[in-house]
Amino acid sequence: MQKEKILIEEFLDKELPQENLKPEVLHKAMRYAVLGGGKKLRSLLAVSACKAVGGIVDNVLQAGCAVELIHSYSLIHDDLPCMDDDDLRRGKPTCHKKFGETIALLAGDALLTLAFEWASKAKTSNPNRNSEITLELAKFAGHCGMVGGQVVDIEVTGAIPSAGNLRFIHQHKTADLITAAVVIGGIAGNASEKQIEFLRTFGINLGLAFQYIDDILDCTESSEMIGKTAGKDVAAGKTTAVSVFGIEGAKEIAEKHKTMAINTLIDAGWENSNLSEISEFVIGRSF
Amino acid sequence: MQKEKILIEEFLDKELPQENLKPEVLHKAMRYAVLGGGKKLRSLLAVSACKAVGGIVDNVLQAGCAVELIHSYSLIHDDLPCMDDDDLRRGKPTCHKKFGETIALLAGDALLTLAFEWASKAKTSNPNRNSEITLELAKFAGHCGMVGGQVVDIEVTGAIPSAGNLRFIHQHKTADLITAAVVIGGIAGNASEKQIEFLRTFGINLGLAFQYIDDILDCTESSEMIGKTAGKDVAAGKTTAVSVFGIEGAKEIAEKHKTMAINTLIDAGWENSNLSEISEFVIGRSF
Repeated sequence: MQKEKILIEEFLDKELPQENLKPEVLHKAMRYAVLGGGKKLRSLLAVSACKAVGGIVDNVLQAGCAVELIHSYSLIHDDLPCMDDDDLRRGKPTCHKKFGETIALLAGDALLTLAFEWASKAKTSNPNRNSEITLELAKFAGHCGMVGGQVVDIEVTGAIPSAGNLRFIHQHKTADLITAAVVIGGIAGNASEKQIEFLRTFGINLGLAFQYIDDILDCTESSEMIGKTAGKDVAAGKTTAVSVFGIEGAKEIAEKHKTMAINTLIDAGWENSNLSEISEFVIGRSF
Repeated sequence: MQKEKILIEEFLDKELPQENLKPEVLHKAMRYAVLGGGKKLRSLLAVSACKAVGGIVDNVLQAGCAVELIHSYSLIHDDLPCMDDDDLRRGKPTCHKKFGETIALLAGDALLTLAFEWASKAKTSNPNRNSEITLELAKFAGHCGMVGGQVVDIEVTGAIPSAGNLRFIHQHKTADLITAAVVIGGIAGNASEKQIEFLRTFGINLGLAFQYIDDILDCTESSEMIGKTAGKDVAAGKTTAVSVFGIEGAKEIAEKHKTMAINTLIDAGWENSNLSEISEFVIGRSF
């Protein structure tokens, strides 16, 4: 999906506010956080979902990139000193290391807000459905979605890991925005209710499998292999799939969600779509 | 407008996520920041604008309260240690003093996101216009709106005050969200294009007059009179109306914007509406 990735990167580069627009430092920080690095996984999922339901790429770019803005804002805020206090992201200094905490905080706020500007005015196959896109984005990213998952992840750090909290964290912190991406892609492509249901089931299982595999690799691979500090979550006392189920148990559940994601694609008749290709990339890794 | 204020407070109390919903601490922090205190000025403006264009209160409550959520989130983030580092807000500990920085940051993020959920699904006089509400909210609150104004306010603190920066800060940091409130109220009431233009002109002049008067009172009144630490902005080296134009010059410009706001109401035939009543409250103070 190299072609689609280039289209997404070009769209973001063109549509994000330019660096010479006042206030320049804010726009520099916003562009720094979104451009130059990252897999653009969520936008690619949105594009793939739109194509799967019969839509065209041009009608999903802005809505799909809105999901990417939400992802980028969440990384900026996650890296702040009062959160994970990270210095590096994608091999570069984190936004607050480069621009200071104040600008990083505000750049995150501005990206989150811009996501909804894009969602509300996005070109889609059926403009009557833009409010649906905004609503899905807000629900999956908000207090009972991504932000809620983030809060519980922080709250239970250091506590005895439980399966209930693990599910809450994995579903909301990770799977919700992935589900939002495919559902929004579907709406942008004017999907039927039945198709949206397939996308929801696919999205949550893809997201859960993705996070399970991430937790497993964190314990079984070197930092070099996974491209970030290995074992960091366990050392920090985080609730992870491995701390709750052990490596073998976690592998079994990861396999279950992977199978459910793939079976959903088959049931929907999308087994030869880009969604299938991207699943291979995201959860096809051996673990 | 005591009746409308009660309706707004009841709506917020009912529609904000309840404290016993997981994650409880997040929902407690969100409710703490929004409820119990504050004039609810922006929601009242939205309600008044809706009524002025012929809409009913029931059709503007959710959209108007969405603006209030944006205002509340901005106060939480403004008070954080990396921003203004304030301990008190409306006579109570600020959100981060009560819940810690991490939860305060995330509660702000969640309120900003919830504002767009409410905007997208708000009951209005014409549901086809909900995307317009979302778009106006995002533009006025975002990188070229409130957040942009906040950035420049911080950037130029300590620098030689200029009229250009003052206008940028006052317009974007303060007047934009006030303008958003009246424009969104108008859209919720299914206003005509002409009416929306009147509301835009009214909103910006009301917002500018409000901020000029605030800057003047900061220099001329006691802390007791204005209900917050007097002289704080000047001491901090902020660009204010007084630091740029002096007290007399600032009074003259405040008077000009006040007159423009009131004349706009007369031109639109709204001189006996709630908008007129609320203007008296907001900018009728002697200065």
